[in-house]
Amino acid sequence: MTERPLVVHPDRLFPAEPSTRAVARELYQSVADLPIISPHSHVPPEWIAEDIPFTDPTALLLTPDHYLLRLLHASGHDLSVFGRGRGPLSEAESRAAFRVFCENYHVYRGTPMRYWFEAQLADIFGVDVRPSAATADAIYDRIQAWIDSPASRPRALMESFDISVLATTDAPLDDLRHHQALLDEGYARRVVPTFRPDRFLEPGLPEWNDLVDQLGELSGCDVDTYAGYTAAMENRRAYFKERGAVSTDHSHIDLGTIVLSPAEAEKLYADARDDKLSPEECAVLRRAMVTEQARMACDDGLTMTLHPAVFRNHHAQTHERFGADVGADIPISVEATRALQPMLSAYGTHPNFKVVLFTMDETTFSRELAPLAGFYPSVYLGVPWWFLDSPDAIRRFRKSTEAAGFTRSSGFIDDTRAFCSIPARHDMSRRLDAAHLAELVVEHRLEVDEAADTLHALVAENPRTVFNLT
Amino acid sequence: MTERPLVVHPDRLFPAEPSTRAVARELYQSVADLPIISPHSHVPPEWIAEDIPFTDPTALLLTPDHYLLRLLHASGHDLSVFGRGRGPLSEAESRAAFRVFCENYHVYRGTPMRYWFEAQLADIFGVDVRPSAATADAIYDRIQAWIDSPASRPRALMESFDISVLATTDAPLDDLRHHQALLDEGYARRVVPTFRPDRFLEPGLPEWNDLVDQLGELSGCDVDTYAGYTAAMENRRAYFKERGAVSTDHSHIDLGTIVLSPAEAEKLYADARDDKLSPEECAVLRRAMVTEQARMACDDGLTMTLHPAVFRNHHAQTHERFGADVGADIPISVEATRALQPMLSAYGTHPNFKVVLFTMDETTFSRELAPLAGFYPSVYLGVPWWFLDSPDAIRRFRKSTEAAGFTRSSGFIDDTRAFCSIPARHDMSRRLDAAHLAELVVEHRLEVDEAADTLHALVAENPRTVFNLT
Amino acid sequence: MTERPLVVHPDRLFPAEPSTRAVARELYQSVADLPIISPHSHVPPEWIAEDIPFTDPTALLLTPDHYLLRLLHASGHDLSVFGRGRGPLSEAESRAAFRVFCENYHVYRGTPMRYWFEAQLADIFGVDVRPSAATADAIYDRIQAWIDSPASRPRALMESFDISVLATTDAPLDDLRHHQALLDEGYARRVVPTFRPDRFLEPGLPEWNDLVDQLGELSGCDVDTYAGYTAAMENRRAYFKERGAVSTDHSHIDLGTIVLSPAEAEKLYADARDDKLSPEECAVLRRAMVTEQARMACDDGLTMTLHPAVFRNHHAQTHERFGADVGADIPISVEATRALQPMLSAYGTHPNFKVVLFTMDETTFSRELAPLAGFYPSVYLGVPWWFLDSPDAIRRFRKSTEAAGFTRSSGFIDDTRAFCSIPARHDMSRRLDAAHLAELVVEHRLEVDEAADTLHALVAENPRTVFNLT
Repeated sequence: MTERPLVVHPDRLFPAEPSTRAVARELYQSVADLPIISPHSHVPPEWIAEDIPFTDPTALLLTPDHYLLRLLHASGHDLSVFGRGRGPLSEAESRAAFRVFCENYHVYRGTPMRYWFEAQLADIFGVDVRPSAATADAIYDRIQAWIDSPASRPRALMESFDISVLATTDAPLDDLRHHQALLDEGYARRVVPTFRPDRFLEPGLPEWNDLVDQLGELSGCDVDTYAGYTAAMENRRAYFKERGAVSTDHSHIDLGTIVLSPAEAEKLYADARDDKLSPEECAVLRRAMVTEQARMACDDGLTMTLHPAVFRNHHAQTHERFGADVGADIPISVEATRALQPMLSAYGTHPNFKVVLFTMDETTFSRELAPLAGFYPSVYLGVPWWFLDSPDAIRRFRKSTEAAGFTRSSGFIDDTRAFCSIPARHDMSRRLDAAHLAELVVEHRLEVDEAADTLHALVAENPRTVFNLT
Repeated sequence: MTERPLVVHPDRLFPAEPSTRAVARELYQSVADLPIISPHSHVPPEWIAEDIPFTDPTALLLTPDHYLLRLLHASGHDLSVFGRGRGPLSEAESRAAFRVFCENYHVYRGTPMRYWFEAQLADIFGVDVRPSAATADAIYDRIQAWIDSPASRPRALMESFDISVLATTDAPLDDLRHHQALLDEGYARRVVPTFRPDRFLEPGLPEWNDLVDQLGELSGCDVDTYAGYTAAMENRRAYFKERGAVSTDHSHIDLGTIVLSPAEAEKLYADARDDKLSPEECAVLRRAMVTEQARMACDDGLTMTLHPAVFRNHHAQTHERFGADVGADIPISVEATRALQPMLSAYGTHPNFKVVLFTMDETTFSRELAPLAGFYPSVYLGVPWWFLDSPDAIRRFRKSTEAAGFTRSSGFIDDTRAFCSIPARHDMSRRLDAAHLAELVVEHRLEVDEAADTLHALVAENPRTVFNLT
Repeated sequence: MTERPLVVHPDRLFPAEPSTRAVARELYQSVADLPIISPHSHVPPEWIAEDIPFTDPTALLLTPDHYLLRLLHASGHDLSVFGRGRGPLSEAESRAAFRVFCENYHVYRGTPMRYWFEAQLADIFGVDVRPSAATADAIYDRIQAWIDSPASRPRALMESFDISVLATTDAPLDDLRHHQALLDEGYARRVVPTFRPDRFLEPGLPEWNDLVDQLGELSGCDVDTYAGYTAAMENRRAYFKERGAVSTDHSHIDLGTIVLSPAEAEKLYADARDDKLSPEECAVLRRAMVTEQARMACDDGLTMTLHPAVFRNHHAQTHERFGADVGADIPISVEATRALQPMLSAYGTHPNFKVVLFTMDETTFSRELAPLAGFYPSVYLGVPWWFLDSPDAIRRFRKSTEAAGFTRSSGFIDDTRAFCSIPARHDMSRRLDAAHLAELVVEHRLEVDEAADTLHALVAENPRTVFNLT
């Protein structure tokens, strides 16, 4: 195989029709260099706090990235090759893993992973040949050299990527020492925690009672009652907010909400603590607890983000061998209109409440989410998430949420643990929104000054508004 | 803020690719001036019968239009500002409301409401500046002057808009005096009632028994039995048909149908009259009653239109303060194949039966509705309704119903209570169908003479066929 | 009506934008003449084995094609006119039926049927005028003359169409004599059977017990036990495999799977043989039997194809008069993630297992099927099937399955009983994939050499891999 050049074209993702492309290019240029606001990611905070250097190309790019791993798995490769379910790879193993990836590079054709990866290769690592068996070693060496430079440490990248806000995702019992350290030192860029209490809201989990005990201990609240559990939650939310948190994140199997009377809630909670709930009752209590988080949000102003409806760890054997987050999670359909009605009827017009609805079920965009966001001042459309974060899906999102306009969407969310892909992900979003707006302009549905103003808002204002990043 | 010109481009909504645009423009021109046929609207009949003048810009354009109101509400504005849930606005209040709308004009970017509004501003009111805080008063004055002209009264607009058929939506107990008056005077344009009996088919509603009593009284039928209830319904359908009705309209939470034996139906009905039905039994009886309306349609030839699956009055407090139809209705998913099977298996090939299926759940277009309309001679695809009446959704509708071709769709339905938006809504539809057909032509999937013939049929023949407007 | 020329343009189905069209044309040309691989069809094997000549245009083109019949039925024409539910048509009746079709030719505008039909008219029969009342007889005569030529017999067409692999669909009790005859004579092209055991896996069917008895008799297995039933199935699968089968095909109302213990399965099976199962238990046993077919596939390597979720024979009276497969089947929604989890958790990473997931519910493409195919090495995306085999739906398929790339899809499946439409169907697929890839190229998401390589794989390699056609 001859070496093919790696080409990252300045007009990528813009529509081919020349007049549309010209408008898209102009719009994109006006926002291309704006700082990155990332209000939801999975970057470990210690990377920034301790400025931990990366080690090798496989550990940097492959091991943590379940997007890339899953297609390698589908192509017949064992996940252990790429460092999952085992200790660190040796240099030879890392190089071999990277070679497998390069040999399989064709499986990513047409995928967003290809787009993000190529942008990193060209724009960050300075690679100019296409990955293949023939080029694997040279690319590996090139990336290793990049890693070994001081300019490639996380804090340097925060500067060169121009990330002005980076939100991590953190457990309620976390002491947030890294966020505190960054606050203490007066770190110029904003690295904020996100309160993610999923397991504490699932009385059906075997570990739930133990988690609640720990919550009580840490918060100093008596968690024998639902009122005490609630106080403990409020205590931890306050702890997070004091350390910079702007949002809480919630991922459950459905979007169900319910308002219980205090007596009903106390009864269910007491039975849950006694392990006496049926699965149906566990779901009711979970929905009440989610709704209660919305009530708390009205008080403390933390934006609530909902990421529902994933069948986690679909393949039992993979879960046993490799644990979670290896690419074996599969979406299911979701319902929003009925499920959220109790919560929105209670808190949907509260001036302090903001909730962002994410989905992997595209059918909800036009049918439920845009209609909800177009009525409730508290509801915002989350941009396409996981499995829908591809160019065509993002284009469909904008075309399916016309009824709500542009002011009701959240701005881009990268939701990634692949640090070096953050600029590429935000760049893709800016290009695609530019392309969408350009089409509205050339079809005479919007004037170009309005399109430019809208694109700027999507990149710079909407995320600040939705996440109270004042 | 400087004043920006308001531009309504002659090529709006046409694809940017030049050869496609040229074909679209030519196709559109061939139907642009055809009369408007509106077989389903919510215009009050007294407006035409009594030629009632409009009063002020806010009452004309904002107060009745829940499409516009909902995005203002989502943007934080109280609905009372725009005249909902209270008496008429003073001149100052009307002007202030209109100013709030103009100040928030950017929230409509990319929405169909923006398109319709702008077409009205430019083509009807002669406004040539973009709405904004700076232009609000001037635009208000301009529209007020237009309202004050005799040429702006409803009958004059029926002429200038060239509306040849206008169907209103009316309750079964309505005496249809306005329609009768128009018939008596020999009014040249056709204004017909539509039989909308939803609440009479919902035994689960608290007011149902009372409504049925009134139905019995008005029709002179003994509604103690299901047979008598049925006779009363037939009586009112006949009353409507005599006054010009061509269709009945039905909006329930699902599309369920069922054929009951007379004995089963009488038993359920008797229990319903005695308030003894469970919610499940109420649903069964409702589905039987809907199916019975289809049976009646085979007899009297009134086209049946189904508009299912809306969660009405989603926000309790808004419903209490402002009542229905203020923008707080949210769609839910819907199922057609199984739900309609009993009705279609019984009446689907009856030569006198026509049923139009509308949906706000796009997933049904390719999966269920196009397949049904492509087999049953009685079934027609309703064009995109509420929340799907935006340019991109309308384009998706045509692309998702390929399997049924063009002869199985209903023609455009505006479904509006915003009288002055009727021309813009029909014009949007003509442009988008022209655009879709132009794409088929340039992709060599259809010859241009066929495209022109098809577009003419969609505008002029299909609605006449589907609604028996001979 | 004047005679219009019939035009089949060389650039049909390519995007209008000139640079995209140029790339699409180039890509298409590179695969236009590749042999046809048809791993799933409904062509009767005796046509090839006995080289049975066709009889007349209506019997060739209309009577067997439920795609064409359903729109004629929707247009008010009785299916008996076209030869369904009755004996063979006379020459006059055949000619009259063909005339009805030509008179209604406009109902196919914009449908895929029109595309396939026109390609046959132009490319196979040499017709150069558009079907209409005026041209019906001339076209009929032309096709009849073509039929009467020896070059139009099935074996000659296998050559001129260049069909290298043709899979038929066959019942488990079939003796496959025609396939055996073709093997015995050493027929150069590959005509293989497909094992389609649907009714043997449905204990709820009235004929199930009788079918199982026959299965036992033919296989020589004692079907009094589930173990014996399973052995009988394995026996017939082996019989099919020996005669060339490469796959089994399964169409049930849902995708449900379940792994039962031997004891549970034996208990349910015994009760099923005694007609003592509830409908719910019938579903459980059916799901266990489907899962067991997957287990067998791990042993014998036959690829499993799943075609779920059709409401068969939706209109009772049509079913009584005309039987099955006349166009009265309507899709329903389907769920894959939860339904397939038991089967995939058990066999999803078995090196010998391959399963192709087809759907008529487009919502599953991005939400469930692409995510599944992007993780499990055994799972392949079936290309759009029935009701989704239209140009725009096929384009949506590619745009909705980005996350899985191109290596995880099955290659084109024509699934047809309309023999002469096979080349047109494969040609449509090649054009549409070329168009999709061309868009990726001009949007700089893929290099042109990669697009060409991908298109070749979709046509020539993917079907061979997925169906083990080595």
